[in-house]
Amino acid sequence: MKTLNVDLGERSYPIHIGRGGLSQPSLFEPHIVGKQVMVVTNETIAPLYLDACLKSLAAYTCESVILPDGEQYKTLDTLNEIFTALLEKRCNRRVTVIALGGGVIGDMAGFASACYQRGVPFIQVPTTLLSQVDSSVGGKTGVNHVLGKNMIGAFYQPQCVIADTDTLNTLDDRQLSAGIAEVIKYGLIADEAFFVWLEANLVKLLAREPEALAYAIDVSCKNKAKVVAADETEQGIRAILNLGHTFGHAIETGMGYGEWLHGEAVAVGMVMAAELSCRLGWLSSEDVMRTICLLEQANLPVKGPVSLSVEQYIANMAVDKKVLSGNIRLVLLKGIGTAIISDDFDMALMKNTIERCSATDSQ
Amino acid sequence: MKTLNVDLGERSYPIHIGRGGLSQPSLFEPHIVGKQVMVVTNETIAPLYLDACLKSLAAYTCESVILPDGEQYKTLDTLNEIFTALLEKRCNRRVTVIALGGGVIGDMAGFASACYQRGVPFIQVPTTLLSQVDSSVGGKTGVNHVLGKNMIGAFYQPQCVIADTDTLNTLDDRQLSAGIAEVIKYGLIADEAFFVWLEANLVKLLAREPEALAYAIDVSCKNKAKVVAADETEQGIRAILNLGHTFGHAIETGMGYGEWLHGEAVAVGMVMAAELSCRLGWLSSEDVMRTICLLEQANLPVKGPVSLSVEQYIANMAVDKKVLSGNIRLVLLKGIGTAIISDDFDMALMKNTIERCSATDSQ
Repeated sequence: MKTLNVDLGERSYPIHIGRGGLSQPSLFEPHIVGKQVMVVTNETIAPLYLDACLKSLAAYTCESVILPDGEQYKTLDTLNEIFTALLEKRCNRRVTVIALGGGVIGDMAGFASACYQRGVPFIQVPTTLLSQVDSSVGGKTGVNHVLGKNMIGAFYQPQCVIADTDTLNTLDDRQLSAGIAEVIKYGLIADEAFFVWLEANLVKLLAREPEALAYAIDVSCKNKAKVVAADETEQGIRAILNLGHTFGHAIETGMGYGEWLHGEAVAVGMVMAAELSCRLGWLSSEDVMRTICLLEQANLPVKGPVSLSVEQYIANMAVDKKVLSGNIRLVLLKGIGTAIISDDFDMALMKNTIERCSATDSQ
Repeated sequence: MKTLNVDLGERSYPIHIGRGGLSQPSLFEPHIVGKQVMVVTNETIAPLYLDACLKSLAAYTCESVILPDGEQYKTLDTLNEIFTALLEKRCNRRVTVIALGGGVIGDMAGFASACYQRGVPFIQVPTTLLSQVDSSVGGKTGVNHVLGKNMIGAFYQPQCVIADTDTLNTLDDRQLSAGIAEVIKYGLIADEAFFVWLEANLVKLLAREPEALAYAIDVSCKNKAKVVAADETEQGIRAILNLGHTFGHAIETGMGYGEWLHGEAVAVGMVMAAELSCRLGWLSSEDVMRTICLLEQANLPVKGPVSLSVEQYIANMAVDKKVLSGNIRLVLLKGIGTAIISDDFDMALMKNTIERCSATDSQ
């Protein structure tokens, strides 16, 4: 079991990474102050891991709420189901909320924790690769609005994160690949050596080798923690974590939440960002090819959906948080391992890049 | 124009109190960083003050959203209307939200500001006496849940508060009295001299004399600011601000939100707290009478609703935030101007006090 500390002053917390963390009461107990615990999970995860989780929490009065599974349920209405459960079970300010599931559960349970009685403690138990590498660090919580993704939320840090790599054994292949997209992102934005490691070891991740998974999660979290510690509320540098996300959110919004997985949309978004960076003369075409190859090796899409027009991308990008400030600002690459934030590009070039990176009927 | 500074470190902000503040662009401008402004108000206040407010904000791109009026609309659904307006108008992270209205508008606009894109700045322009003395200080924002009042929210401080006493001229008498209940509360919990001033000057408040109103608002806000600065997130002493509120919330919940005004329910709650304090030997019966007389003079109810049973009080109090931790803890009085927090009383005595302080059919 590796333990990584996320350094955020009085909001610092540990991330435990490795096999079997879910079944270790000693990982939970130092972070639970009251007697009540509310486990928030979904209908996919509950049959697999809720019992194990409750067993680790046997020392407390445990309740659980089981939500429907999917990004399309990441709404204020579903959030309200968590509040209803907390109130029906008479949970007080000392309740600890446990988020048992993927990124959607983590985002909603975290946001509910931030708002319930104006803030109660919570513990993240991410059960997907994507949430283990991404949602575990950074304190971004929230829900979607029909007019935009992640538009409603809070910065709210967990008491601890328990990333049990054994839970990845039940993840379906598509979800595993979606998680690998975010892992590759950390290589692209900040860690060339890790990108090279991924080129050599991707097969091990796809085969779910626990050692390789734990290493990839650890390095990803470390890279993210470094950026978040420098800019907790995203006033500047933290935005580099959004590589591929502005394009990706446009795909998710355009296709309807839940149709494309977040990691799949981000994969295509990273190809678009790499391609645009290449056209600006910042990234070699060889590095674009390495990026595409690695994503393809991870069984991720590298072309945007045929049904989404450039105009739809632009319209969807225009409500993105990162774009609302006026100009479209993108995270681009000055090399593998070096991201920059820029609005210094021609819109026509960007549109053409989107078109070129989208699937056509004949494909 | 008086200006009072609320001292909360880097979250400090000024409260401007006096006549005509709403019409002074110079009070708004130092606190607006971007170009966009969203005024959140309701259908009662909009016809009265929205134009004046927009005129003061003429230097910005202004949008407004007009919500239905009343505590019964202080819900997640209404909150979502604010998010929809912000997104439809393409408001970015640099938008400033203006809360123009009473406590319900302040609570909802403040909470929407806390959550929209994980936090945008907001300015409070309270237009009721209650919100000028109460919601202006303390950063409590939020909405109700059907199972409990103010159960969903955030601590979130405004950039500034503009308490324009001229807006109180259009307040109906019942609302004015409800505000005076909270003003009296500050005398009871922390300021005996102010209580004595109120006994001598209540007539001036009822006659809406601007000087008297500005003085009462200033002293109330100062008293509240002192408590909040000592305990921003209510870990301890801040709870004394809840004098009368545990009983009061039980009345509001029991009668349905919007039936009793918050200040009216708090008035009865303060009588119950005073009466219980007297029975515990902590407050003289003379001081209980002074309290009842002052509230009656302010045209406030001093008896609980006939239709609410003791059992309903207890059930409603049991989901109150201040009670959820187990024992019922109440704010009681050790004298006028001296509040304490205690669970050291007999439940039967408390129930009997509720009964004695409730209206009966024959009344």
